[in-house]
Amino acid sequence: MPNTYEVGKKLVELCKAGKHLDAINTLYGPNIVSLEAMSSPAMPARIEGIKAVREKGEWWEKNHEIHGGDVQGPWPHGDRFIVRFTYDVTAKSGPMAGKRMKLDESALYTVKEGKVVQEEFFYHMG
Amino acid sequence: MPNTYEVGKKLVELCKAGKHLDAINTLYGPNIVSLEAMSSPAMPARIEGIKAVREKGEWWEKNHEIHGGDVQGPWPHGDRFIVRFTYDVTAKSGPMAGKRMKLDESALYTVKEGKVVQEEFFYHMG
Repeated sequence: MPNTYEVGKKLVELCKAGKHLDAINTLYGPNIVSLEAMSSPAMPARIEGIKAVREKGEWWEKNHEIHGGDVQGPWPHGDRFIVRFTYDVTAKSGPMAGKRMKLDESALYTVKEGKVVQEEFFYHMG
Repeated sequence: MPNTYEVGKKLVELCKAGKHLDAINTLYGPNIVSLEAMSSPAMPARIEGIKAVREKGEWWEKNHEIHGGDVQGPWPHGDRFIVRFTYDVTAKSGPMAGKRMKLDESALYTVKEGKVVQEEFFYHMG
């Protein structure tokens, strides 16, 4: 079973390659909990379960044009690790449609028995 | 009472200016818990109380020559925020004495009633 740091390294490697959905499909547990710092009509603060998290990832990919970005880390501590994401994107729908934005966030992941069981996104808006 | 993001911004501002001890003295609660990803004889994984945390900060400053560094963030989520630290230092004592090292870590802070009540350091060694 991979340890926390190994899961983190694999997640960073896949996200760097733009393969976020592969990361979800291969590294996440079935009861994954996903928590956002803020909520919106399109994205509630808390979702649960691999199906909902996969749909959230698909929604995000479909609704953003990604011009570039970077993924840094992981930084581990016990059964958790932190990853930093920066993205240069243009939203394709919603209130920010057509707007090019720099996204800068950190995420805190919790690993149990070799699988990611929780992801929490940290960022400031405004 | 400052909110989580305001506490985080102040902490980053003070740390960027090299004023780590000022950050401890002004932003930390009396029962602060400090958790390291790894422990060493000089630095146990868990310490508690403002006195012990201040002494840890003083020990760190006294035992490292700081050549440069950067502090990024904060990224907030609810009552917590993440900060990233990179330092270029030379240890002055211990097994790494005389060795110039790049330190790269993220820290997760928890805020209650306007004060930092927990700091957790995330990093990988080796």
